[in-house]
Amino acid sequence: MTTDPVTPRRTPAGAAVLREDVTDAIRAAVFEELAAVGFARMSIEGIARRAGVGKTAVYRRWKSKLHLVLDLVTAFSAQGLPAPATGSLYGDVRALLEVASHALRHPVASQVIPDLLVESVRQPEIADAIRAALLDSQQGIASVVVRDAVARGELPEDTDPERALDLIIGPLYWRLVVVRGALPAGYLDGLAASAVAALRA
Amino acid sequence: MTTDPVTPRRTPAGAAVLREDVTDAIRAAVFEELAAVGFARMSIEGIARRAGVGKTAVYRRWKSKLHLVLDLVTAFSAQGLPAPATGSLYGDVRALLEVASHALRHPVASQVIPDLLVESVRQPEIADAIRAALLDSQQGIASVVVRDAVARGELPEDTDPERALDLIIGPLYWRLVVVRGALPAGYLDGLAASAVAALRA
Repeated sequence: MTTDPVTPRRTPAGAAVLREDVTDAIRAAVFEELAAVGFARMSIEGIARRAGVGKTAVYRRWKSKLHLVLDLVTAFSAQGLPAPATGSLYGDVRALLEVASHALRHPVASQVIPDLLVESVRQPEIADAIRAALLDSQQGIASVVVRDAVARGELPEDTDPERALDLIIGPLYWRLVVVRGALPAGYLDGLAASAVAALRA
Repeated sequence: MTTDPVTPRRTPAGAAVLREDVTDAIRAAVFEELAAVGFARMSIEGIARRAGVGKTAVYRRWKSKLHLVLDLVTAFSAQGLPAPATGSLYGDVRALLEVASHALRHPVASQVIPDLLVESVRQPEIADAIRAALLDSQQGIASVVVRDAVARGELPEDTDPERALDLIIGPLYWRLVVVRGALPAGYLDGLAASAVAALRA
């Protein structure tokens, strides 16, 4: 078991200093615990045991398992998706699908977030947090892609970015997260061409 | 508390007879219990209490909570979706989206099935059962729609029905189940037109 906190090299005035290796161990444990038992069955006790720390070390950093998991989602989305700027709508959509196809196969997207979405019906603050951490940033990227395509004359001016995101990401989400199907060779190319046609319809 | 079984009017030779009103009460209780606590936290004890029956009455009918929930999913999908035959690809897709927009807002689709999909990573037999109960029938409908459209010359002969389903249902699933957004007036009309364009691309 790792003790925590230890004497830090520099102590910011008035702030408790938390060991980063302990924080990292707890984060990794949350991830493993979510995969093993899911959000509903997960406990701070189980996380602490898996991380090899005391429960206090967890509570010193996060006030509940919900906060722990939302922290994971936020970290995942912060890695995320710069708006592509390839110079064409097809290029931008294809680039978005490439990034999304990796992101959606990451366990946070394929397992943790669906788990939280299910839980969000019972705990509406989860829905708000996911929206803030994830959907808003995706929506922002779709808005940039649409704005650039409109500026190039590739899409009509009244194109709705929310609807655009539905058309671009929806089919891929369905296949990877719901059906849990494979991506055959050329699938993303075809999907990008289909999404462009769908956006122009 | 309802006793069960009572003396039935006709007893099939050698078969235990189970009271249908008790079966219905248990099914309703499963549904309420899933909404209240979710699959992971749900227990046979909680279901029996909510249904006002003994645990034995539940176990006489279903051997586990998984079987109970799969029964619910199967009943939901059996109500399902006849293949539309409107005479045009747009008409068929629009009809599918209409039915799907209601189905996806049903708690079984928006809550129970996503809950089970999350659980299916830990219990692969759930994934198989959902596939059999739900995806196979949707895939069958998509196949009929594609076959008819090919016969009318509206789609190329090599159109893949699985990919067609991704393009038709994916955007709607994303909007209703993931984003949990509204359906503005005319949204389904536009989505049907977009899906047709996507299929032809």
